[in-house]
Amino acid sequence: MSAGGDDAWLDAVKWDERGLVTCIAQEAGTGRILMVAWTSREGLAQTRALGEAVYYSRSRERLWHKGEESGHTQKVEAIRLDCDGDVVVLEVVQAGGIACHTGRASCFFRRLVDGRWVETEPVLKDPREIYDK
Amino acid sequence: MSAGGDDAWLDAVKWDERGLVTCIAQEAGTGRILMVAWTSREGLAQTRALGEAVYYSRSRERLWHKGEESGHTQKVEAIRLDCDGDVVVLEVVQAGGIACHTGRASCFFRRLVDGRWVETEPVLKDPREIYDK
Repeated sequence: MSAGGDDAWLDAVKWDERGLVTCIAQEAGTGRILMVAWTSREGLAQTRALGEAVYYSRSRERLWHKGEESGHTQKVEAIRLDCDGDVVVLEVVQAGGIACHTGRASCFFRRLVDGRWVETEPVLKDPREIYDK
Repeated sequence: MSAGGDDAWLDAVKWDERGLVTCIAQEAGTGRILMVAWTSREGLAQTRALGEAVYYSRSRERLWHKGEESGHTQKVEAIRLDCDGDVVVLEVVQAGGIACHTGRASCFFRRLVDGRWVETEPVLKDPREIYDK
């Protein structure tokens, strides 16, 4: 798998049986968690090379340069790896301030309050405007 | 699966084929990501009831009340769910300031710098002291 040398850092990641790793996008500065997706070895290598988040879409079975349709790219300021190597954190600057496909800043817009999920973040832009340009 | 009523919120979570969901522990206030683990329906219900994080250990195949051995419990201040319901975020106050089994504050202590993983956080307590009391 490894080409050695420059790619050695990718060997520290514990890729799952599909060759993927869980990837959390966190807003640089605020620490806000924006979204969670998957990436592959190639996706992570491209993320580093490009300086923008590249995920792997399991439904589309291909690499997915975040923002390729929406324009909501994520500039990557840091890449972190956890102790057992199976989760990556990307510290990002979110273009447009919208990470979620629902048009919200973050995918984590539901908070449990008194046993019910309550939406705590507004829709900043109608998803139809984001995706049907 | 649902008992209805009080348990209805658990039905909004998209449990995977093992009955688990990815669970991120984030430090309340700072937004620092401390660790990522799994939890089950029962684990999440207990988390809410107890007000402390209860995960599911796949290796031990049982619920795991974080801190049961180490004393490093996590007081849960908020529970969040993402747009597609397959990731939960717990906003926690970390007892002892140590979430990682390596004795560090966070499991994400490796940062990619010039193509190499660099440790950016000190070991605050020797793991042998944490677990062999």
